[in-house]
Amino acid sequence: MGLDLSMGTLLEQIDSPDDLKKLSVEQLSALAEEIRDFIVGSLSRTGGHLASNLGVVELTIALHYVFDFRKDKLLWDVGHQCYAHKIITGRRDKFVRLRKADGISGFPDPAESVYDQFVVGHAGTAIATAIGMAIGQVKQKKNDNIVAVVGDASIVNGVSFEALNNLGLVRRQLLIVLNDNSMAIDPTEGSVAKYFSRVRLSQTYEDLRKTTSNILEHMPVIGKGVEEAVERIKKSIRMVLPASQMFESLNIPYFGPVDGYDIGSLIRLFRALQQLGHPAILHIYTKKGKGFGPAEEDGRRFHSTGPFKMNGDAVSGQHSRKSFTEVFGDCLVELAEKDERIVAITSAMCDGTGLGEFRRRFGDRFYDVGIAEGAAVDVAAGLAKSGLKPVVAIYSTFLQRSFDQILQEVALQNLGVVFCIDRAGVVGSDGPTHHGLMDIGFLRMMPNMVLIAPANADEMKLALEFALGEDRPVAIRYPKDFVPEKRFARAACKKPFRLGKAVFVKRGKASGIAIVSYGSVLRDALEAARRLSKDRIEVDVINARFAVPLDERIVSLLDDNKGIITVEDHSLACGFGAVVLEDIAASFKKPIERSVRVLGMPRVLISHDSRAQQLVSAGVSADGIVRAAKEMLSSSQL
Amino acid sequence: MGLDLSMGTLLEQIDSPDDLKKLSVEQLSALAEEIRDFIVGSLSRTGGHLASNLGVVELTIALHYVFDFRKDKLLWDVGHQCYAHKIITGRRDKFVRLRKADGISGFPDPAESVYDQFVVGHAGTAIATAIGMAIGQVKQKKNDNIVAVVGDASIVNGVSFEALNNLGLVRRQLLIVLNDNSMAIDPTEGSVAKYFSRVRLSQTYEDLRKTTSNILEHMPVIGKGVEEAVERIKKSIRMVLPASQMFESLNIPYFGPVDGYDIGSLIRLFRALQQLGHPAILHIYTKKGKGFGPAEEDGRRFHSTGPFKMNGDAVSGQHSRKSFTEVFGDCLVELAEKDERIVAITSAMCDGTGLGEFRRRFGDRFYDVGIAEGAAVDVAAGLAKSGLKPVVAIYSTFLQRSFDQILQEVALQNLGVVFCIDRAGVVGSDGPTHHGLMDIGFLRMMPNMVLIAPANADEMKLALEFALGEDRPVAIRYPKDFVPEKRFARAACKKPFRLGKAVFVKRGKASGIAIVSYGSVLRDALEAARRLSKDRIEVDVINARFAVPLDERIVSLLDDNKGIITVEDHSLACGFGAVVLEDIAASFKKPIERSVRVLGMPRVLISHDSRAQQLVSAGVSADGIVRAAKEMLSSSQL
Repeated sequence: MGLDLSMGTLLEQIDSPDDLKKLSVEQLSALAEEIRDFIVGSLSRTGGHLASNLGVVELTIALHYVFDFRKDKLLWDVGHQCYAHKIITGRRDKFVRLRKADGISGFPDPAESVYDQFVVGHAGTAIATAIGMAIGQVKQKKNDNIVAVVGDASIVNGVSFEALNNLGLVRRQLLIVLNDNSMAIDPTEGSVAKYFSRVRLSQTYEDLRKTTSNILEHMPVIGKGVEEAVERIKKSIRMVLPASQMFESLNIPYFGPVDGYDIGSLIRLFRALQQLGHPAILHIYTKKGKGFGPAEEDGRRFHSTGPFKMNGDAVSGQHSRKSFTEVFGDCLVELAEKDERIVAITSAMCDGTGLGEFRRRFGDRFYDVGIAEGAAVDVAAGLAKSGLKPVVAIYSTFLQRSFDQILQEVALQNLGVVFCIDRAGVVGSDGPTHHGLMDIGFLRMMPNMVLIAPANADEMKLALEFALGEDRPVAIRYPKDFVPEKRFARAACKKPFRLGKAVFVKRGKASGIAIVSYGSVLRDALEAARRLSKDRIEVDVINARFAVPLDERIVSLLDDNKGIITVEDHSLACGFGAVVLEDIAASFKKPIERSVRVLGMPRVLISHDSRAQQLVSAGVSADGIVRAAKEMLSSSQL
Repeated sequence: MGLDLSMGTLLEQIDSPDDLKKLSVEQLSALAEEIRDFIVGSLSRTGGHLASNLGVVELTIALHYVFDFRKDKLLWDVGHQCYAHKIITGRRDKFVRLRKADGISGFPDPAESVYDQFVVGHAGTAIATAIGMAIGQVKQKKNDNIVAVVGDASIVNGVSFEALNNLGLVRRQLLIVLNDNSMAIDPTEGSVAKYFSRVRLSQTYEDLRKTTSNILEHMPVIGKGVEEAVERIKKSIRMVLPASQMFESLNIPYFGPVDGYDIGSLIRLFRALQQLGHPAILHIYTKKGKGFGPAEEDGRRFHSTGPFKMNGDAVSGQHSRKSFTEVFGDCLVELAEKDERIVAITSAMCDGTGLGEFRRRFGDRFYDVGIAEGAAVDVAAGLAKSGLKPVVAIYSTFLQRSFDQILQEVALQNLGVVFCIDRAGVVGSDGPTHHGLMDIGFLRMMPNMVLIAPANADEMKLALEFALGEDRPVAIRYPKDFVPEKRFARAACKKPFRLGKAVFVKRGKASGIAIVSYGSVLRDALEAARRLSKDRIEVDVINARFAVPLDERIVSLLDDNKGIITVEDHSLACGFGAVVLEDIAASFKKPIERSVRVLGMPRVLISHDSRAQQLVSAGVSADGIVRAAKEMLSSSQL
């Protein structure tokens, strides 16, 4: 019994999974189309992760139709594919403020809904957390179902594999849905990807249907124990190609591949697999951007998009200025033309890190290892060891995954690897899982490591030239932001980088305060100086360039009885300001806290909002600097 | 033609691989026995990694016999199996000072020999660095051979898998020797281990010999391209069981399994595989502790051992006192008896982290995920999410590998996971790759995280009780050291832990200096106070207990015009002292640098030596504190 369609569209009647369960399979397919239209329409105004979400609408509907995720646990790996899930679980109306202040997050969030388990934005974690929750179910004498949805790009991540290798810890139901859209944000690299595509190419639509009925037919005879299960599956379910080979060798019961858009079959499969007393993998085929032409053609561009027109064109005026990412990409290509030892490594983020043009121009000097940040860094170490100049381009938040490899294989060996850390600082709409607020802290503890940050486009090139000239590890950080307009590109910033040398951008006569900025916040420091001078407060403005080694002249500022205000787009803990404090304490200079103020990001979750607002809220802004300067002067700190 | 045996033992004549190449295969086997005797004899006096090194003597000899590792690259994964390699490459005489000051390292070290590539002590990195070096060879128009020796326990590490998944980047010779001794430091866990043991059990000695001749026979027909290679291998080499299944699915040419002690066959195999124009895996069987009864029986105890008698007994007097590790193990068992929600997770270090008794008592509440620190933390997150109280016990140096998982799946979710960080601080003889000098820094940047450190045995239990009582992430750090004797177990340290509360252990009347220690260095702070009072210098001694949140009373000490000396066994950068500096700067207290001195470890490679000496050299000792206090008083810092 379906719903009365005279009531209007189906979607309007879905305020919870319960409403979903009232629909017929035919209506579910119709609903899928409505949800897809809703997502496209809504994101055309707000922007967001489009392609991945369009791909999993039918899957999401089928999951909610069979399971009750008020008690059952649904774990989305990566999490940027949860829009249909949010729409179905009563958050449809909130999409007008998707990823905006006080709006809903672009990722699952337990604070938003009981249907969400983890705030999750990094790939490869769902299988491991699912194992923990499955064990917890047993220990707590509960029997809720657990489902982890993992993409073909996420399953090759080291943590995913470590978890698959430990699936044996679970001796109860645990369903892993392998959502195979044969594409990460960039086309998936590596042997597993080739394996999946060999399987995919061998499958006709007819094969997928045959496999589905095969599974449903033989389900009753599948044993309870994993060992027999794997054996019986091998015997009973004839695969056109041993698609299960890889998982069989790991003793993981594998089913598939099946069609990810056949809601009816998915529902029957979930009902059957729900009965198993052991973990199992269901391999389904989906397509990024499904149902929206432009996104199907260019899943990469529509992975995370701004507002767009229905023909797929971006709403104009978005890219009036160049981003630090684009400038980095241009500079690297320019330098790579002159030095063929320069090679680039990235981790499934070729375009995101601005390496697209580099790859087109120097395909044989470009390496994308997939979502495998640890391996990316160790491969780079090997490249450097053999005399090349590897440039590792990874977002700050993802570079956290290679902390130990950077320390062990690069820093301890003192190898010439250049880390180009994009998205350093707050990242705006992606929120807590994606901020890059810790790179200064975790990198500056390492021996031999040099830390620099360019303030503008000119300095990006100078920083790269410097880093590639050093025969030791150098990390360059820059934000998810546009480079400052020309008027901020001061002459001072055109001087080549010299180890441990800051540039004094502005000297205020009889200045009692020096503003020391690290990286792109020089823009705010200069704006603050401009405003202060209107109030006849003259300040020095220093562009530190180096966090490690720090320019001794910065510590010496205290000798001239200047107050210091440090500014950075990084955690206050362990950040650039902390370097200044540590170096001052290690030396014997003037009193500190009366003369040093540290501006940076607090040690709290900074939720999705505009990047500008996130910085302003923390006082990392011209306003914040002006305030700090005036406080310093008034509170007799000098 | 062999050497003249009248010249004495073979080993005495081996000062470089060139000497090795003069021997006959028969002599090589005899040499293997001599090397084994040398290692056992030498380590019985110095201690060191025994079991793993005894296992790979024949392998090492065969490798050096076939390859020329002056130019060819030999990469030892983990590295603690390089003793035979060091003996053969001219470092035999240096074993008297193995892992001692000015002696040779227990791990490969390019500074020691051209035959070493990387300073390597963490598992799972060799395949990735080998890929980088192989690509480098091509780019540099060189054609040196590259061999990576990887253990069956290391190959399941996430980074290993990420690298295997990217082997396709290499289109030239790259040999991976899978050294399968069916045992990590602890028996290997997981599906891959089960897969390997299924294969192993199916193999008779006869099978291994058959496989060897099969490989040698068919080698000429193995294609140059990887794809045909894999196909032809499948066709031409009949395995008793599809041992190659797992690697075939990843399209990696696989050969084996073969006997790791048949030097003649190994030599022929290496000569054959050397010819391949693509990467390949050779799977060999070895045994930990081979040739030394006690170590064969208990590979775990002899993984890293102190001096021992020839019957295997430890040289007495070693364990007069309890280590922090043992005290932790005892306390956890005691608490686990009262609260069945307590579960323990470790990463191939059950005994090393003191969880042996816990596993014996609560086998169904103990989880060893193998060398997979990332997964260990995410599994713990899932356990905590479902209401359990997971205790993650991992060495500080290895916990670095789960930085991002601790942040993403635990800290951002504010889950009640307790991290018991063993080997925090300098670790003595293992050297740079194993120091735990960064945990305070990388953990304290995370929201919700609480950082504590016990000063003695009493506080270990109080710290655990506190941590398990909190419903948020808590990290407890303690060193590779004995707990202080009773006389240091002050009454003050018997008070329960209260969030953000330090304990004032000693109040010097009219004291101008407060020594604030974090963790086990309280012992040195008290000793320093004792010595200072002999010189009529009275000081306060404060046991901080918490690094985050820091007790405000520590910042307030400056109000009483007290100088502060912070002491910690952690990097000066981002450490406990830095927390004090940051908190003081954030508040408005008295001048700092004239009144705060920070004692900790410098940002340099700290090579192998006794732990005590490493601390003394850095001034993290009673002497260092006394010196700092007297400087403070003399240099009018107060």
